Amino acid sequence: MSCDRPITALSSLPTCPHCHSSVLKGHYDLSGLDRHQWIQTLRQRPPSLWRYQELLPALKPQHRVTLGEGYTPLVPALRLGAAWGANHVYLKDERQNPTGSFKDRQATVALSILKARGVQRLVLASTGNVGIAYAAYGSRAGIATTIFFPQDVPPEKVRETQVYGSTVVQLPKNYDETKVAAAQFAQAEGWFLDQGVKGFAGVESMKTMAFEIAEQLGWRSPDWYIQGVSGGLGPIGVAKGFEELLALGLVDKVPALGLIQTAGCDPLVQAWKAGAAEVTAIDHPKTTILPLATGNPGVSYPILKALLDRHGGAMTTVTDEVAFDTLRRVAGQEGISVEPATAVAIAGTLDLIDQGIIAPHETVIINCSGHTYPVSQAILDRRQLKAN
Amino acid sequence: MSCDRPITALSSLPTCPHCHSSVLKGHYDLSGLDRHQWIQTLRQRPPSLWRYQELLPALKPQHRVTLGEGYTPLVPALRLGAAWGANHVYLKDERQNPTGSFKDRQATVALSILKARGVQRLVLASTGNVGIAYAAYGSRAGIATTIFFPQDVPPEKVRETQVYGSTVVQLPKNYDETKVAAAQFAQAEGWFLDQGVKGFAGVESMKTMAFEIAEQLGWRSPDWYIQGVSGGLGPIGVAKGFEELLALGLVDKVPALGLIQTAGCDPLVQAWKAGAAEVTAIDHPKTTILPLATGNPGVSYPILKALLDRHGGAMTTVTDEVAFDTLRRVAGQEGISVEPATAVAIAGTLDLIDQGIIAPHETVIINCSGHTYPVSQAILDRRQLKAN
Ligand SMILES: Cc1ncc(COP(=O)(O)O)c(C=O)c1O
Ligand SMILES: Cc1ncc(COP(=O)(O)O)c(C=O)c1O
Repeated sequence: MSCDRPITALSSLPTCPHCHSSVLKGHYDLSGLDRHQWIQTLRQRPPSLWRYQELLPALKPQHRVTLGEGYTPLVPALRLGAAWGANHVYLKDERQNPTGSFKDRQATVALSILKARGVQRLVLASTGNVGIAYAAYGSRAGIATTIFFPQDVPPEKVRETQVYGSTVVQLPKNYDETKVAAAQFAQAEGWFLDQGVKGFAGVESMKTMAFEIAEQLGWRSPDWYIQGVSGGLGPIGVAKGFEELLALGLVDKVPALGLIQTAGCDPLVQAWKAGAAEVTAIDHPKTTILPLATGNPGVSYPILKALLDRHGGAMTTVTDEVAFDTLRRVAGQEGISVEPATAVAIAGTLDLIDQGIIAPHETVIINCSGHTYPVSQAILDRRQLKAN
Repeated sequence: MSCDRPITALSSLPTCPHCHSSVLKGHYDLSGLDRHQWIQTLRQRPPSLWRYQELLPALKPQHRVTLGEGYTPLVPALRLGAAWGANHVYLKDERQNPTGSFKDRQATVALSILKARGVQRLVLASTGNVGIAYAAYGSRAGIATTIFFPQDVPPEKVRETQVYGSTVVQLPKNYDETKVAAAQFAQAEGWFLDQGVKGFAGVESMKTMAFEIAEQLGWRSPDWYIQGVSGGLGPIGVAKGFEELLALGLVDKVPALGLIQTAGCDPLVQAWKAGAAEVTAIDHPKTTILPLATGNPGVSYPILKALLDRHGGAMTTVTDEVAFDTLRRVAGQEGISVEPATAVAIAGTLDLIDQGIIAPHETVIINCSGHTYPVSQAILDRRQLKAN
């Protein structure tokens, strides 16, 4: 499904020039990189994801669109971990990024590449966080962004996107439908469409979480990387990052992936549990947790399945109710207030521990992917918790 | 006004044991610290404010209540700087802290000290951000927090505080009145009252911004540190931080302080412009920018005046309208969406440049103190912009 021929970063955005696949991979010539020297050099660099520049798309400094994103802390889950009988659970606190979610990684890499290519207008569909991130980095890059949102994006996220001056189009549609509308609009206008997991910047940016986790753990891999998953960009990127470190001899394995979805929108989990080769789309996702409401993850599924087959891992679901309860526990016990989509990952971790799939001595990293801020109303107002 | 006798961190919270002053200073024995070695050691430590532990209250590791806060990026103000003809303007992006504002610094140090002292219940008055920060760190510390808010704290901030399980008391009063009510309540209950600028943790924590700025600039001081100011904790702490680095021989000066208030609540600016020794309280602040609505800054004024006399600096005001316009420009041009209280600092910087007080070649650091998230409604909804 994905191209294995070497491609250079800047030529490779829309489709692979070699195989015309829609899923692109970056290939780096690392033969000249002395790994011992490199990890010393890293320590002299600012704590941003761009410290790993040798493993990122080559960009001239003036094209780098950066707000100091990445290199977010690994915060131990003290009381939750203890309550679970697990001693090495860490939250990778992606809330501490410029717009409050891990999607800032994608935005800094994507907008830098687009700036280098001279793109002036960008269209994308988002469930909220990608839109906010691209709005921020778009305004820093001087690239006009038009963001398509499905109907259930909360007003806080819409407003935050508008603060940056982005054009927001909110449609009475669900996310999968909104993606189609954004693609049609982009084609009609001749504007650049960001392709998410199919684009180049997505996977290349998300892999920096792997580099940071390995560096923060003293150049070793955790046993697990856990995330609430929708389109699957995060874990696909993280796995590629660990694969690159493995090739460099900096870590000795790729962690198992723990992928968590909501009970109301779990196409990946269903396909994986059935051992299917392809995913069956869910036409009407039934969850209030919109960032995880991709009913049709398409090409991501076979990639994720292959990663789990190769490196180990598991998928499971949690209900919205359990996610919201977990959210309150994490805020009240760890001092970390997260989005419901993040709470899904945390609740799912407990489920995997309870099932005996994660062992108490294992090192577990949970992607603390987004902040409560834009959704606190929904959290405190239980009326909004009914599935649509 | 402030005590100059050495005090140890943990004995010193409520009042100074030596002189019973209500404004406390930490004193560190730095005679054993080799500065060359120290700055090498720092590079091996995680990017959190606790990397400067030798210059922070001594705490056992198990008492440290941390979420990886601090060591926030210095982001160049590219287009604004160019528009202003100033080439070395940086935003210290304090939004990239766990709860989205620079008050997380105060919370991590304060709650750590309180945990070490075995305090179980904490009361404080806040215009929003301190309350959210203490709620988060309080829940991580296992210390119950009761937060008193004045009437105009926006619902987003109230909700965020509640997500952590804090008790919120919102009173039909302004901020100065709310502080009195919180103090009375704390005394009646026998619970610990956080004293803000009069406490020990406030100044000791805020000085870490100075350490970070100096380290990020390659161990030199900027020419200016600019902030929107209410109680004045930030600049008092930052100045102390640079004084400590100066004593260590790591920088060659303390920067000039640029202190900005709103036209509707400018007691510090009025007193300073009049050359007064004491501040005259403003009984009815007329600004919608609540974090800067301290009508009676009390003891802070003579401290700030002395700092400006010693190290240089200036004070000025901007209107709420100008601040909100600036907010949109910064979001639209730099990709950084800030609170109105931060926009006040940015607008004030331009004013000081226009007045010729800041020269174009000078290095200027603006404290990018808080995120738009909790206030985006007020920003986009112009009806809320009328002064109360
Ligand atoms: C907060 C948050 N968590 C998790 C996800 C899922 O990310 P993905 O499946 O693309 O890796 C998203 C996607 O928007 C998100 O916003
Ligand atoms: C966002 C923000 N900026 C600036 C200030 C002013 O801080 P101080 O005067 O205490 O240094 C505050 C105070 O609450 C704030 O919340």
